[in-house]
Amino acid sequence: MMIEPRTLKGFRDYLPAAMIPREWLIEKARQVYRSYGFSPIDTPALEYREILEGKGSDETDRQMYRFEDHGGRKVGMRFDLTVPLARFAAQHIGQIGTPFKRYHIATVWRGENTQRGRYREFMQCDFDTIGTRSAVADIETALVIVDLFRTLGFEDFTIRINNRMVLTGLLEKLDLIEKSTVVLRALDKLPKIGRDKVAQEMITTAGASQQQASDVISLAELKGSNDEVLLQLEQLLIGNETGQAGIARLRQVLEAVAATGVPRQFLQLDVSIARGLDYYTGVIFETFLGSLPSIGSVCSGGRYDNLAELFTRQELPGIGASLGLDRLLAAMEELGMIEATNTPADVMVVFFDKDRLYDYLQIAQRLRTAGLAVEVYPEPKKLGQQLKYADRRGFRTVIIAGSNELETGTCQIKDLKTSKSVEVELGGNIADTVETIKKILNS
Amino acid sequence: MMIEPRTLKGFRDYLPAAMIPREWLIEKARQVYRSYGFSPIDTPALEYREILEGKGSDETDRQMYRFEDHGGRKVGMRFDLTVPLARFAAQHIGQIGTPFKRYHIATVWRGENTQRGRYREFMQCDFDTIGTRSAVADIETALVIVDLFRTLGFEDFTIRINNRMVLTGLLEKLDLIEKSTVVLRALDKLPKIGRDKVAQEMITTAGASQQQASDVISLAELKGSNDEVLLQLEQLLIGNETGQAGIARLRQVLEAVAATGVPRQFLQLDVSIARGLDYYTGVIFETFLGSLPSIGSVCSGGRYDNLAELFTRQELPGIGASLGLDRLLAAMEELGMIEATNTPADVMVVFFDKDRLYDYLQIAQRLRTAGLAVEVYPEPKKLGQQLKYADRRGFRTVIIAGSNELETGTCQIKDLKTSKSVEVELGGNIADTVETIKKILNS
Repeated sequence: MMIEPRTLKGFRDYLPAAMIPREWLIEKARQVYRSYGFSPIDTPALEYREILEGKGSDETDRQMYRFEDHGGRKVGMRFDLTVPLARFAAQHIGQIGTPFKRYHIATVWRGENTQRGRYREFMQCDFDTIGTRSAVADIETALVIVDLFRTLGFEDFTIRINNRMVLTGLLEKLDLIEKSTVVLRALDKLPKIGRDKVAQEMITTAGASQQQASDVISLAELKGSNDEVLLQLEQLLIGNETGQAGIARLRQVLEAVAATGVPRQFLQLDVSIARGLDYYTGVIFETFLGSLPSIGSVCSGGRYDNLAELFTRQELPGIGASLGLDRLLAAMEELGMIEATNTPADVMVVFFDKDRLYDYLQIAQRLRTAGLAVEVYPEPKKLGQQLKYADRRGFRTVIIAGSNELETGTCQIKDLKTSKSVEVELGGNIADTVETIKKILNS
Repeated sequence: MMIEPRTLKGFRDYLPAAMIPREWLIEKARQVYRSYGFSPIDTPALEYREILEGKGSDETDRQMYRFEDHGGRKVGMRFDLTVPLARFAAQHIGQIGTPFKRYHIATVWRGENTQRGRYREFMQCDFDTIGTRSAVADIETALVIVDLFRTLGFEDFTIRINNRMVLTGLLEKLDLIEKSTVVLRALDKLPKIGRDKVAQEMITTAGASQQQASDVISLAELKGSNDEVLLQLEQLLIGNETGQAGIARLRQVLEAVAATGVPRQFLQLDVSIARGLDYYTGVIFETFLGSLPSIGSVCSGGRYDNLAELFTRQELPGIGASLGLDRLLAAMEELGMIEATNTPADVMVVFFDKDRLYDYLQIAQRLRTAGLAVEVYPEPKKLGQQLKYADRRGFRTVIIAGSNELETGTCQIKDLKTSKSVEVELGGNIADTVETIKKILNS
C-alpha cells in the first residue's frame, strides 16, 4: 500500500522557484552583516525545556513543540533566536569577550493557529551587538538596516526610530511608571484602534486619569521633521533626566547616520512606536516599505539592558534587530522585484547529436571555468522537447551545436525570449560565447 | 534562581571560529552545485511519522526524535534528506517535471549513542539528479565531486567508483542473487576484517560455498589501472548481460570524465566498494582524501532505480551523492587548511579620538562601499585595549587615525602580525587605503 506523500499542516516545502530568491536574500543579508563585522553563530534546534519556558510570552510557551527525548529529558524546539542567544551568551561570553557582534539565520518552530495564515516553521534572521551601551552600536544597527534594504534593491523605505527612555521619562513625570507595561501595550494599539479607545484602555487597565492618558497619547502623536519633534520632546520632558538622555541619544544616532551620507528620508523619528516587549529599554526601530506599508514592519529591533539575566549574573546590555524574511519575500514578489525562475543556471547546453556528448560536456566545463552556471540536458531527445524543458525551467539561453557547427568550431546561442539565434566561435578561449550569453542575460 | 545555561547532550553551539569556515564551505558547495544547474529546495524538519518510519534502517527508526504535536498528530524529526526527497518528489514531480536536479543543505537529527563521539544534530549536503537513467547524470555526479574538492582547495583526493551491476552480474552468474543483501553486507567489511572472515560470513549467512565466496572476494580484489580492471571484469562476466552493461557504463563514465580534462588520478575504479544500502542499483561513489584516508569517505552516493516507490507509482530513477560536511571540516582543520579567525571582517577601525566618531564611521562606510568588511570599535577606550580586542577577534589589520592624521587626510594602517604601521592618504577616493589593506591581508 502506498503512503500518501504530504506535509504537516502549517509546514511547507520550498520548491526551486521559492528557494532560489530565498537563498539570494539570505546571502545578501549575510554579506551586509559581515560587512559590519557581525560573525555567524548557530545553536541547536532542541534545548532543555527549562531554557525555553517562561522566556517569551504565555503564547510562545503554549505554542512550543515539546517532548521527552530518548534519555527522558524534557526538551523543546526553539521558538525564536533571542532566547538561544541569551543562553549562548551566558555560556560562552567569557571565552568570546565583548563587544560581541553576531548574526544568526536559522529555523524556528511555533505550533501556531494556522487559520491566521501563519506557518509553524519559519526562518529568523537576527543580528545583535552585545556587551556595550555605546551609541556606536545603535548607529550601526540603523546603518545595517539601511544597507540591507538598499542592497536588496529598495529605494523607498523608512526606518522609524524611537527611544523607550522618552516614553519612560514621560511616565516617570506623570507618575505612571509603575504601570508602564500596560500603558505601552495600550499605546501600541494607537494606529489600530485610535486615540479614544487607547485612552479608555489606559484609564481602565492602568488607572490613569483622563489627563494622564491624554498626555501620553499627545506625546506619541507629535509630528514634524526629526528636528522639530526633538525640540518638542525636549520641552515636554524638561526636568526629567531619563527623557532628556533618551532624546540626546536619538539626536546622536540621527546625526551620525546622516554624517555617514545616508539620505535623511530613510530615518524618521516616530514617538508612537513603543514595541510592547518588556525587555526593550533604549532605542527601538521598525522598518516600513514605502510601496507596501500595509504589510507592517519588515525589520524591527531595539536596545535592551540585560540580555541574559535569567542565566547569568553578568550584565549584558545590547542592541539588535530581526529581518522579516518571509514578509519581505512576499513583498518583493508582490512588487515584481523577483524574477521567476526554477534554475540557478545561466545557460543550458542542448544534447543535440547523440555522438557528440563529449563536446557538450567540454563546452559546459569551459563555460563553468569562465564563471557561468551551465546545465547539460542529459538525453539526446528531440530539440523541441529539450527547448520546452529549458523554457519550463526558466532558462533564458541555450547552446545548440550539431556536427556541422562543431566541425567548424562554432555554436548557436538561442535567446528563448526573443527566439533569435546567433552563431559564435567556440574558439581557443570561449570568451565570445561567454560575452554573448551575458549580453542576452542582461538584456 | 538562575537557570544553568547548557546545551543538550549530543548537541553543540557553533561559535564564530567554527561557524565561519562552516558557512564558507556550505557557500562553496552551493556554488559548485549551482554551476551544474542543481536547484535548491527545502523541506520541513518535521514530517508525519508514517513518512519517515521504516524508510531507513531499524537503527534510524529507533533513533528518530518522535512525538505528538498540538493536534495529536504523530510526527518525527527528519533523520536524513533522502526520505524527505522521496516524499517531495512523489508530491511535486508532476509540477516540476523531469529531469530534476536539486541540492538540499539542511539539518537532520538522530538520537545516536553519543559515546561513539556522534552528534545528535548535524547537517547534510546532498545533490541528486532525478528522473533519468542517462549516463550524463552519472558523469556529472563525478564531475561535481571533482569540482567540489578542487574548489575547496584539495589537490590530492580519489573518487572510487564502482557499479552495483557488476556485483549483481557476478551474483547472477554464481546463482547467489537471492542472497545479494547479505553477501554485499559481508563484502563491505573486506577492508576491516579481511578475506577469511568475509568468506566465513558469506558461507554462514548466505549459504555460499567456499568457491562462491572466493569468487566474489576475488572480483572485489581485482587491482590495476582502470583499463586493466575493466578488461579483467569483461572476462570474468562473459555471457552475463547485467555485468557487461555495468562495465560499459563504468567505461563510459571514466572516458567522459577524462574527456572533459579531469586528470585521470582523481577517478579510480574500485570493485570492492559495495555501499551496502539496498537501494543503490548502478554506479556508486566514495571519495577519500589522499592526506587523510583514515577518516573515511567524505562524499558518497550512487544510482538508484526507484527513489519514491513507497509514495508513488511513478518510477523515479536517479543518482546523487552527499558531501560529509562535518568530516570534511574536521579534516580541513587537521590539515591546516582553515585559518583561525573569529571575525568575517577585513579590518577594524580604532575609536581613537572620542570627538572624531563621525570620521571613523565615514571611513568605515567608504571602505564597505569599496568591498571591504569593516568593524568600528564601539567605545573610545585606550588604544592598547582596542588592539587587544582586535587581536583576540583575529583581525589582521586595524586603522588608527587621530586628529593630526584626520586633519591632513591620512590614517595609519597597522599590521597586527608584524606590528608594522604605514601611513596612507584617505584622499578623494579611498583606493590607497583599500589597496594597502588588501596587500597585508594577502601577504
